[in-house]
Amino acid sequence: MTEALDGEFPLRTFLDFTIGDGPDGLPGSATAALDVDERHLNPNGVVHGGVVFTLVDTAMGRATMSILDEGMICATIEVSVRFLRPATGGRLVATVSVLKPGRRIVHLEGRVLMEGDDRPVASVQGSFAVLEA
Amino acid sequence: MTEALDGEFPLRTFLDFTIGDGPDGLPGSATAALDVDERHLNPNGVVHGGVVFTLVDTAMGRATMSILDEGMICATIEVSVRFLRPATGGRLVATVSVLKPGRRIVHLEGRVLMEGDDRPVASVQGSFAVLEA
Amino acid sequence: MTEALDGEFPLRTFLDFTIGDGPDGLPGSATAALDVDERHLNPNGVVHGGVVFTLVDTAMGRATMSILDEGMICATIEVSVRFLRPATGGRLVATVSVLKPGRRIVHLEGRVLMEGDDRPVASVQGSFAVLEA
Amino acid sequence: MTEALDGEFPLRTFLDFTIGDGPDGLPGSATAALDVDERHLNPNGVVHGGVVFTLVDTAMGRATMSILDEGMICATIEVSVRFLRPATGGRLVATVSVLKPGRRIVHLEGRVLMEGDDRPVASVQGSFAVLEA
Repeated sequence: MTEALDGEFPLRTFLDFTIGDGPDGLPGSATAALDVDERHLNPNGVVHGGVVFTLVDTAMGRATMSILDEGMICATIEVSVRFLRPATGGRLVATVSVLKPGRRIVHLEGRVLMEGDDRPVASVQGSFAVLEA
Repeated sequence: MTEALDGEFPLRTFLDFTIGDGPDGLPGSATAALDVDERHLNPNGVVHGGVVFTLVDTAMGRATMSILDEGMICATIEVSVRFLRPATGGRLVATVSVLKPGRRIVHLEGRVLMEGDDRPVASVQGSFAVLEA
Repeated sequence: MTEALDGEFPLRTFLDFTIGDGPDGLPGSATAALDVDERHLNPNGVVHGGVVFTLVDTAMGRATMSILDEGMICATIEVSVRFLRPATGGRLVATVSVLKPGRRIVHLEGRVLMEGDDRPVASVQGSFAVLEA
Repeated sequence: MTEALDGEFPLRTFLDFTIGDGPDGLPGSATAALDVDERHLNPNGVVHGGVVFTLVDTAMGRATMSILDEGMICATIEVSVRFLRPATGGRLVATVSVLKPGRRIVHLEGRVLMEGDDRPVASVQGSFAVLEA
């Protein structure tokens, strides 16, 4: 299942992002990251909000899966993204972690940063439902 | 500038979505739509949340631009997406409209539906800042 | 249980708001309303965001309960309020309705208006978990 | 102005909450807190969401004001509250801080906790507009 989430899929292949453990390497966090290039930009030369969201949603799915029991899956209930600064280049990294590992609902929060710059590009929160596979 | 927003960019070309006026053809609304195929799916066979968000964010940008004075642009402050039902095929249509056309802040809401099915796939809200170009 | 939700409680008594069916009188919608006076205002003479939220959260709880089976209760997962215009007087009415009556998750949306003015004061969305009592 | 925000107003008097600096005492953060008693509870014996929101919105207003230039005020654009655990008693503390002190938009995030318990009751984010008084 995390296997499936971590596998290749066309949008991931196109955007060319990595998915991995969170900074602490423990269950309950995850990262997704990419090196910004032309394909990630909107017509104004800024990374498209859809690219930021794709990193965040994918990382949240992985972080949620990392704490679930065998045989359980998750589905996004709601995700909110607050765009703090435009990103135009460099390595874009979404880092998320579980705030509340409920039996039925998992809440998460996270940040999107440009590597080497501690001023966030986006601040995110989300909630996922836990379901039987 | 709506020209720029409506122009091609790599993520739009990859996802192959259209951008257009809202159902009433008036300023203040917009749609973005695509025919779901393999490239839009996550490893579980469901349209990736990032694809839904890309339609919504792009449509919100167009709807906002459609009511701005010449020389003004917009930037996303925050967008929230509530995922109501999984989408797996068919034509996915995001329709958004301006709720409050403020001089400095524009608020929007919208729905994402599968064409021919009135049960929403996602319900969305967002707020944009109005800036001088 | 709608009985309990509709009953008096101190914050409701203080704010003096009514709770009722939605405009269509059908399960799945609800309203909460009050006549704005001094007690609802913040120091700037505008209705406090907490008053708006209290109406919305209470109405969402009632609308959710109205569609649940006997023996089920609900708990707020997340509520987002977008403040479109300040309210300073008159009758403030929150109207909410269920967007998706899931077995485990119920999604809602709504508006807050001043009676007689169709420009919204706030636009809201929320998600509730369905639980056994 | 912070004077006004920190002053008494009827909802604050009723809920009996304090407003103060954030944990670091620096501009850009704030707290609002109350000792839970009967008046804060909904009919199910849990602190009403409207009480949680009132603390959060008030603290966010103060944190935002603390970084603005003389003569500027703020207005809530959007606030989202994620309810992680019910609160039933003890001292409820909302702590918020500015994530991005923009010239026109200020973004904040925060937590609501029961004093002495590090598992959050709520996780919150918000965005405020900066306006001339």
